[in-house]
Amino acid sequence: MSTDVVIGIDLGGTRIRAARLSADLKILQRIETLTLDGEGLDAVINRIVQQAQAVWPTYARVIGIGVSAPGPVDPIAGVLTTPPNLKGWHNVPLAKLLQDRLGAPAYLGNDANLAALAEHAMGAAKGYKHAVYITVSTGIGGGVIIDGHMFVGAHGLAAELGHVIMGIDGDRTVDWEYMASGTALARQAQAALEKGEDSLLMQMCDSIDAVNAKMVGAAAQAGDKLALRLVTRVGQVLGMGLVSILHTFDPEIVVMGGGVAKGTWPLIIDPMWDAIKKHCMDSAYWETLKIVQPILGEDVSLVGAGALALGKGS
Amino acid sequence: MSTDVVIGIDLGGTRIRAARLSADLKILQRIETLTLDGEGLDAVINRIVQQAQAVWPTYARVIGIGVSAPGPVDPIAGVLTTPPNLKGWHNVPLAKLLQDRLGAPAYLGNDANLAALAEHAMGAAKGYKHAVYITVSTGIGGGVIIDGHMFVGAHGLAAELGHVIMGIDGDRTVDWEYMASGTALARQAQAALEKGEDSLLMQMCDSIDAVNAKMVGAAAQAGDKLALRLVTRVGQVLGMGLVSILHTFDPEIVVMGGGVAKGTWPLIIDPMWDAIKKHCMDSAYWETLKIVQPILGEDVSLVGAGALALGKGS
Repeated sequence: MSTDVVIGIDLGGTRIRAARLSADLKILQRIETLTLDGEGLDAVINRIVQQAQAVWPTYARVIGIGVSAPGPVDPIAGVLTTPPNLKGWHNVPLAKLLQDRLGAPAYLGNDANLAALAEHAMGAAKGYKHAVYITVSTGIGGGVIIDGHMFVGAHGLAAELGHVIMGIDGDRTVDWEYMASGTALARQAQAALEKGEDSLLMQMCDSIDAVNAKMVGAAAQAGDKLALRLVTRVGQVLGMGLVSILHTFDPEIVVMGGGVAKGTWPLIIDPMWDAIKKHCMDSAYWETLKIVQPILGEDVSLVGAGALALGKGS
Repeated sequence: MSTDVVIGIDLGGTRIRAARLSADLKILQRIETLTLDGEGLDAVINRIVQQAQAVWPTYARVIGIGVSAPGPVDPIAGVLTTPPNLKGWHNVPLAKLLQDRLGAPAYLGNDANLAALAEHAMGAAKGYKHAVYITVSTGIGGGVIIDGHMFVGAHGLAAELGHVIMGIDGDRTVDWEYMASGTALARQAQAALEKGEDSLLMQMCDSIDAVNAKMVGAAAQAGDKLALRLVTRVGQVLGMGLVSILHTFDPEIVVMGGGVAKGTWPLIIDPMWDAIKKHCMDSAYWETLKIVQPILGEDVSLVGAGALALGKGS
């Protein structure tokens, strides 16, 4: 018996993963290797090809290959423009290179966009026509589903929601990511500790410089006053950013993932809702709105890449 | 010979207009009356019906009626929720009321969304798949075209771009409209004059309270230092808001209309572009971007309503 499958590839900052998925996006086989520092482009592409071949089916037909990469990418041309986590890569026509080497149509997508696609296809946003996915980790990324389709804009650069401006000072601007990401949380904690504020955080690491968002989340969960204040504020600012997103996209559901959201969820969800209810111009934006955590866990990029390979991206 | 036509109705704060349009959106006949203060809902609806009948064709078939109303509206249910310029109107099922009285399918849309639709169908954004329309007048309104279609979100409340948050102070927020609309320009000029700043504006009206955005625009065009500084800053803040819009929607073209944009265009266009080039995260957002003025003038709402009646809204 022959069936159709897709190959999903997740190009991360620290590892490359590949999976074979069924046409209903179940992962049938997967493989993973760490990325090596200083490895050249050709070597990395060879390794991607080898991993795809390792999960390639013996009998089934591969109808597409999807690749998830850290943004920005040009999903229309299938080009990796300037991936911040993949040093030295610029304007690599990855989709075409893989298509030529592997003999199946290949597609490229930004990781946050593909997470939105995956959660819409199989996860928390399944069945909704208008959904927004936010990841709050080192930075803030976004993906948007409009009328059941992944939205990428004219050049594939839409939904960079972490880079929406949230503050102006003269001719300088600060964006949502600067104010409410894991990097922001760590920076804010370090600044308070530098000023001599007392906190459990000083017992959790050797130096102020070593304080990170995960520690701040843990300290807040343990009731530490400083950490709790900072995490509550991040929840409030995440809510204020969501106000802009609701006024802009009017979605039915917001899925919020990423390490920072996961590690602080019970502490951020109330301040987030409070900010939304206070600052939205009309209660119709939030009366039936759902704000939920993602379902798919660390497979989200592979499932998103698989969904892209199935043509669900357009 | 019988041809198909549509009826467009523009429900403004100060007047009601109706037009008969051809299927290629040419205005064939129009009528206009002023709205009367204190007129009840039934009286207004009767007048809308009479105006539609006045432009109703003798031989042609009316395939639809489109109504443009000040937001927020529920375009999906055809309900006028809380139009700020139409005192005392709440949750009026206007589309159904008109459909029952006039015997043709009726559709309702927010005026800024329909302006986007009109400029896309017949005006400055014709031929573009991804376009954003901004109106800068008393407030700031927005309309978005995605993949050639008007984007209204899950409840018809999307694209309220004037209400995107641009500043946070504690638990207070200020939005784009607060910082860069005509109301903002007048408020900022009045505040500077109160502080005793010298300006041509003091010769243009009897009291500081009477200073409005149009005067500030005129004074700036005449080289007045204060007015020029305020208008330049509004151009810069409009550009900063566009940065968020580009990161969010990645359009090919931005059409910027409204009295304030029209009255200050040569003075705001450079600071707007400077802010975009400075604050966008990637030059790909603006390298091929067009920012232009609308083409349709005061007929924009009638043409947009006609386009909606033709089914171009979905």
